[in-house]
Order: sequence, then structure tokens, then C-alpha cells
Amino acid sequence: MVASREVQLKSFPTGNMTEENFELATVQVPSPGQGELMVKNLWLSIEAGMRALLHEGDAHFGFGKGKPVRGFAVGQIIQSRHPRFPKGGYITGLCNWQEYYISNGEGMQIIDPNLVPVHHYLTVMGAMAATAYFGLLDVGRIKAGETVGVSAAAGSVGSVACQIAKLTGCRVVGTAGSDEKVDWLINELGIDAAINYKKVDDLQEAMGAACPEGIDVYFDNVAGKSLEAALEVMKPRGRILACGTVHDYDGGGPAGPANYLQITQKRLSVQGFSVLDYMDRMPEYLSRMSGWITEGKVRSRETVYEGIENAVAAWIGLFQGKNIGKMLVKLGDPDKVE
Amino acid sequence: MVASREVQLKSFPTGNMTEENFELATVQVPSPGQGELMVKNLWLSIEAGMRALLHEGDAHFGFGKGKPVRGFAVGQIIQSRHPRFPKGGYITGLCNWQEYYISNGEGMQIIDPNLVPVHHYLTVMGAMAATAYFGLLDVGRIKAGETVGVSAAAGSVGSVACQIAKLTGCRVVGTAGSDEKVDWLINELGIDAAINYKKVDDLQEAMGAACPEGIDVYFDNVAGKSLEAALEVMKPRGRILACGTVHDYDGGGPAGPANYLQITQKRLSVQGFSVLDYMDRMPEYLSRMSGWITEGKVRSRETVYEGIENAVAAWIGLFQGKNIGKMLVKLGDPDKVE
Repeated sequence: MVASREVQLKSFPTGNMTEENFELATVQVPSPGQGELMVKNLWLSIEAGMRALLHEGDAHFGFGKGKPVRGFAVGQIIQSRHPRFPKGGYITGLCNWQEYYISNGEGMQIIDPNLVPVHHYLTVMGAMAATAYFGLLDVGRIKAGETVGVSAAAGSVGSVACQIAKLTGCRVVGTAGSDEKVDWLINELGIDAAINYKKVDDLQEAMGAACPEGIDVYFDNVAGKSLEAALEVMKPRGRILACGTVHDYDGGGPAGPANYLQITQKRLSVQGFSVLDYMDRMPEYLSRMSGWITEGKVRSRETVYEGIENAVAAWIGLFQGKNIGKMLVKLGDPDKVE
Repeated sequence: MVASREVQLKSFPTGNMTEENFELATVQVPSPGQGELMVKNLWLSIEAGMRALLHEGDAHFGFGKGKPVRGFAVGQIIQSRHPRFPKGGYITGLCNWQEYYISNGEGMQIIDPNLVPVHHYLTVMGAMAATAYFGLLDVGRIKAGETVGVSAAAGSVGSVACQIAKLTGCRVVGTAGSDEKVDWLINELGIDAAINYKKVDDLQEAMGAACPEGIDVYFDNVAGKSLEAALEVMKPRGRILACGTVHDYDGGGPAGPANYLQITQKRLSVQGFSVLDYMDRMPEYLSRMSGWITEGKVRSRETVYEGIENAVAAWIGLFQGKNIGKMLVKLGDPDKVE
């Protein structure tokens, strides 16, 4: 038996979630049975989208009151009675927010620690980052010379979207919530313009000034007010890639833009999509992205909280914009395996 | 000189428009000069979409304080000094809400009074009705067997959309605002189900019951609350044809759906479009539609107000749902022409 701390959902949040909605508990994890493995979680992926699943009566992916919070993680196999998952190896997948757990391997992917640092499988090499790749290239079919707008541009998906759009030869304009983020986007990631939406009086005006010819493709992670501004700046027949609605995930109010009429008047398209439809093309993504990382063309940046006791703070912090790049919680270092 | 009454815009409405926003004036219309014609308006087309243009500082199509209201009309040429527009002929196009006017013919189409009654060029043979045709067949690419939802189904565009979708072999479900409209949709136009949204407690539930397998294509004239219900009932990868947002035209509040997130979660597409992009294909439309009318496959229904002094009441009435089918104002009968 191994003692393992886990984050449990005590109550479904209404409006902004708080520490009171969660509880840290300690459970005893038994040894793995035949066909099972014990995993030591090293990194938890903190994701905005998971907040959207946290609704009473409408919970998905195993969320429930009194149950552990669910999320993507990277862990190390520290015991194994499963032939496909050797002890010492690293895996990633959807699991619970736990320090240790038993798995039968279903839905878990083995990852290569020699290709990139293992936590990159939750950042630029992760499925969430692949959202940017498939969204821009497959759904949006962006072309060199087009102007691409990205909301939550300094976030985990947005920052990858910015970099892929630049690599494609687009003019890229991002919005973010701090001067530090704006600085990073422009000076480190090399995008063409970035706007601190908290500092401008009129976001539409600022976006219009940054995109004098309008936006061809808008990679939308947020919806709500920032989408309203973007709709006014879109070119006729522009394409909006509806990736997410961070605006309303954590009690931010309705995500639909008040000026929805612009969609009709400008003949815009809005296309919802999910990376879950591209899982069969993840090898293509991993191959291209690892190449870009190796060549120094894509950078990963993380904001790291330490310890499972700070996982909820990290999640809450995500909605307060405390992350630059990917928000992660580091649970521990890998065990030495003989 | 001919005395002609006209409806002028006195003030831009805020919220619901009222009679006080308009003024009936009498002006003297001179005889046509060389290359001009005098038109006697017979029918005014009352349109929801025109209300969206009536915003101070954001007026289009010639709207302005102290100026005549603009709109589509059918008129008779009663004097002509223009070789292409013979006296006695009928024309349609965008003009002022006037009993008589002088035109140089620009932007006006000659119509054939022998093909269908002339007011049909503002109803099923009009460009607004063609919105339904190009929206469903070209943008939406509806196929036999699909379920098509139509909002404002008893309106001028919606009722044509319902009939074209039925002719294509679709299952058609419409929403409308009175039992009389529902009865007309089901018993006269032959659609599969119709819902009086004013009488149901839960529109989403009612739409779900009427579309047990979900909606493939939603022809949206309204946006707002009815779109929210439809989003919950859409099939994954469903297509939303964003034709209009009647919900917000006349002070109804933001048109964007609160549950915009459904677009991402269900991978829906929303495509804005305008019939103005299909003007070169109007001959195709007129040919098919006149065939359908002749064969009795498409029916036109009008709600008619009489006299230019009632044009504003008709426009206000449109937003109160007082029309079944097309709202028209009849200004007069054609002159006898020797």
C-alpha cells in the first residue's frame, strides 16, 4: 500500500470556483494486480476546458461530487504487472488528480523521455496544443499572407497557435491580459502585434489598429467580449475557429457575442472543432512539433505550481490569468529505476 | 406635378420603434426629365432586416433623419422618358416609401405581370424569398432525409424555406408565434412539426421532442433565445445557416446565444450569408420558383395593410408577429394605361 493524496470535488462551483469546492484527501493505493500498473504522477496539466465540464447534472469525463478531479497528467510507471507498460517508463493520459494510482493501461500512451522533456507532452507536444495545429491548418486552412487573430494568445493553446501561424507565413495579432504576456508574445514568439485587453479602453479600436486590413482567420479561445471586438474587425467572409469559450467557463457570463448579426452581415463562418477528432493524426503532429522544437522554431513555456496541495490554486489561477504558456503542477521527480 | 405622400424618419428609434419615430409628409413630384420615369408605387415590402439598418451613426442604404424610409417596392411606370422603361410596365427595386417618385431606372428591374401577380415579386418571387433558396441549397446543401429546423417559420423567408426544404425531401420543423401560424405551417404548407414558442414552457424540450434525432440544418432567422434552444438540439456537425437575427433588430437584446459553447462541443458550423451575393443567379431562382407556383407546390401568403399612412403600423406589427407570410402595404391599384 502506498499513501496517495488526491484532490476531490466537494461541491459543484456556481460562478467562480473556489478552494471550498475541493478537498485534499489521502487514500491508500494497493499494489497492482495482474495486468495493472502503479503510476506515480509527476505533472498535472491544468486546463480551462475541464472547468466547462464541472456542472451539476451535466458532468462528463468522470467528474462527480466526492470523486477525484479528472485531468491529463504525465506519470512514471513505478510498478508493473502489464507486459506493454514496463516499469520505469513514462505515460500520459486522462486520469485523476492523484499522486499515485493503479491503471490497466487503457487510454494511456507511452511517451519517449529522450525526444523532449516529459512535461512537454502536456505542453507543446500534448493533445491540447495539437488543437492549435489541426484548428489552423485543417479547419482554418490558413495561408501565408493572411492575418490571423488569436485570443488568449499567451495561453497554452493560443501560444502554439501564434507560433504555427507565424511558421505558416501569416501576420499574427494576439490578445492577452498582461504587459508581461504581450512582451513575451512579441519579443520571444515574434508575433506581429499583441494587445493587453485589460489596458485598452476600446478593444475593437485596438484590434482595428493592429489589423488595418481586417482579420482573415480568428482562432477563438475565449468568445464573449473579445469575440465581439473581433467580429467588428473580421474581413468579409472571414473564418472563425471556435476552439473554446474561456469567457464563460468559470462564471464569466454568456459567451455568445451581442453583435452576432455581424456573422450574417459579413458572411462569416464559425466552425466548432475538437482535437478529439484528430487523435488518429497525433503521430503526424508529434513528428512535426518535435522537429520544430528541435530546430528552435517553437518554444514551450510553463507556469509551474508545486505539489498536489496547490493544484486547485493553479486551476483558479488559470482563470485569473496567472499563467504564461502552459499551467502545470509538478507533483514530484521520477524515481530512480534500476 | 403630382402630390405624393411619403414616410420620413423623424428620429432613430432606440429599443422598439414607434409611430413617433416617423412622419407622414406630402411632397410634390415633378414630371420626369429626359431619361427618367415616374413610378406609382403599388406595393411596399415590409422587412425585418431593414430595421437593422436603422441605427444612428450606422445607417445604410440611404436611411437618415428627415429622409424618406427606404424599402423594396413594386410600382407601375405611369410616365416615361426612358427608352428601356415603357409606360404601363411594372418595376421593382429599392426605393423610398413614397406614393410616386422619379427614377432614372438605375437598380430597378422590370417585372412580368403575366407570369405571377406583381406583388409576388415582393413575396415568393422576391430577392428576400430567394434567401431561403440559396441558403438551403447552396450554403446549407440540404439533402433528402435530413431534418431542417426553421425559425420564424411563418414569416416571409421562413415559410419559403419550409416549402423548399419539404420539396427537397427533408423533415421540416418550424417555430412560430401563434397557433394560427402553426396551423398554417402544418396544414397548408405541410411541414412535419411546428411549435408555438409562446405557448411552450421549455422551447428546447419541445424542439427535442419534435426532432428526436436532432437537427441537421438550422435555418436561423432569429438568433437569441430560439437559437439557444436549437443549439441544444443540433446533431453533432450540424450546420447553422445564419440568415438573420430578428431577435435583436427592434430592441430585443443581444442576439448571441448564451450557450455558444455548444458550437465547439458539437463541432457545429455557422455560416453567414446574404442573398446579395446571389443576384447573378436570380434568373435561375425566378424560373424555378415560378414553376413551383404554377404547379401549386409553393404557396404565397400575405398580410396586407392598406395605404401609406399604415406603413409604419405594418412595420411595427411585423415585430409583434402580426404577419402570416409576407407583410405588405398596398398603396393603390395600377392605372389603366391606353
